[in-house]
Amino acid sequence: MTMKETTKEKTTIVLFSGDLDKAIAAFIIANGAASYDHEVTIFATFWGLNALRKDTPVPIKKGFLEKMFGWMMPRGADNLPLSKMNFMGMGPKMIKHIMKKHNVVPLPDLIGMAKEQGVKLVACTMSMDLLGIQKEELLDDLEYAGVGAYLGDASEGKVNLFI
Amino acid sequence: MTMKETTKEKTTIVLFSGDLDKAIAAFIIANGAASYDHEVTIFATFWGLNALRKDTPVPIKKGFLEKMFGWMMPRGADNLPLSKMNFMGMGPKMIKHIMKKHNVVPLPDLIGMAKEQGVKLVACTMSMDLLGIQKEELLDDLEYAGVGAYLGDASEGKVNLFI
Amino acid sequence: MTMKETTKEKTTIVLFSGDLDKAIAAFIIANGAASYDHEVTIFATFWGLNALRKDTPVPIKKGFLEKMFGWMMPRGADNLPLSKMNFMGMGPKMIKHIMKKHNVVPLPDLIGMAKEQGVKLVACTMSMDLLGIQKEELLDDLEYAGVGAYLGDASEGKVNLFI
Repeated sequence: MTMKETTKEKTTIVLFSGDLDKAIAAFIIANGAASYDHEVTIFATFWGLNALRKDTPVPIKKGFLEKMFGWMMPRGADNLPLSKMNFMGMGPKMIKHIMKKHNVVPLPDLIGMAKEQGVKLVACTMSMDLLGIQKEELLDDLEYAGVGAYLGDASEGKVNLFI
Repeated sequence: MTMKETTKEKTTIVLFSGDLDKAIAAFIIANGAASYDHEVTIFATFWGLNALRKDTPVPIKKGFLEKMFGWMMPRGADNLPLSKMNFMGMGPKMIKHIMKKHNVVPLPDLIGMAKEQGVKLVACTMSMDLLGIQKEELLDDLEYAGVGAYLGDASEGKVNLFI
Repeated sequence: MTMKETTKEKTTIVLFSGDLDKAIAAFIIANGAASYDHEVTIFATFWGLNALRKDTPVPIKKGFLEKMFGWMMPRGADNLPLSKMNFMGMGPKMIKHIMKKHNVVPLPDLIGMAKEQGVKLVACTMSMDLLGIQKEELLDDLEYAGVGAYLGDASEGKVNLFI
């Protein structure tokens, strides 16, 4: 008597970058992998947390440095800069315009699709501490974990990217 | 009667960056892996496409934004900036000078070696759309594909890097 | 008679970046993996070598360009800039302050922990040539190798990151 394990491919992405172009790449790969039936985890750490912030300020009591970081960092997927040719915000506008023209889904919708496809979105708790970001400021339905949980997922997968 | 499959190791690199130093790292790893008999794919996406552009302008009808992007982005492997210490182009000159002194093969030749060793160079078609880059502007002998093809290769390999 | 191989998981990180935030991420992942009993290699290449420099100048005869690079590049783990919001060095001070407040181990200690846990720290010899960095300028107890050695390790692992 045999039991066939149905082991799905696992794919993980550490999203370290808070740049629009890199976040788009991360979510396009994640959505692609999910549509090929991989189990996908995006582990958002450092500036990557900014892609998962709500786009409206959330009133929270914070220390001074945490407040400064929160104020200076982009608020959410629709407000990220480009890693190149940002031109004080003109670059992202151009890219979004071209994405629309070519029917490429904008980043907030790519994130929505990822959630719908069951991509596990994890916020790195240590980075949240460091940047002073609290759960209330992040999108709903995230998981919260540390590097141990990430390594648990990654060591079962083969496509493990750091973006 | 058994048949032994000769499965080569597979190695994939997403070349997202258009920086000289990162492209050099990508092609040195790719050439190294190919010389160890891995099947290697470089999937050039976003700014990484610039490493695969021809260095002469190619006359093509384009929209305004696409023309601007094409005009502002570096044209080919010999014109990429450094990610650090670019100094308006002095940095790349210094690095190239030092590479020559230490007999490190320059990037255009690293790309040529990759082709000769059978490294599969793939241009991301979605990124070509977004940045308005057309086949005529890219090196010859590239393949053209999307994220699905990349994931097909990557999920059979173990060394999968995002550069 | 059977012999059970005790194969440890292998994890490799190419540390290409010389940014404080990325180096912290790299060493936190490396230390995490080592504490899960993975065999971990950090292969420091290009600017990543700066994280492994001694923080005091070491008198060495060098060519002019090599001297310039050595002079301009940050000297060691305690002197790295941030990839974002560096603000002429204010950013790293802020991050270090917050790390201390949240009991996150500073980078020089993360490197020390990595050594104690047996993480293999490898300096890329080709990058040392290019940037004119010599063994005397780097931390003690490093290994020195090229891309071939890296690929040997990476092709036996599944978590292989480029940071």
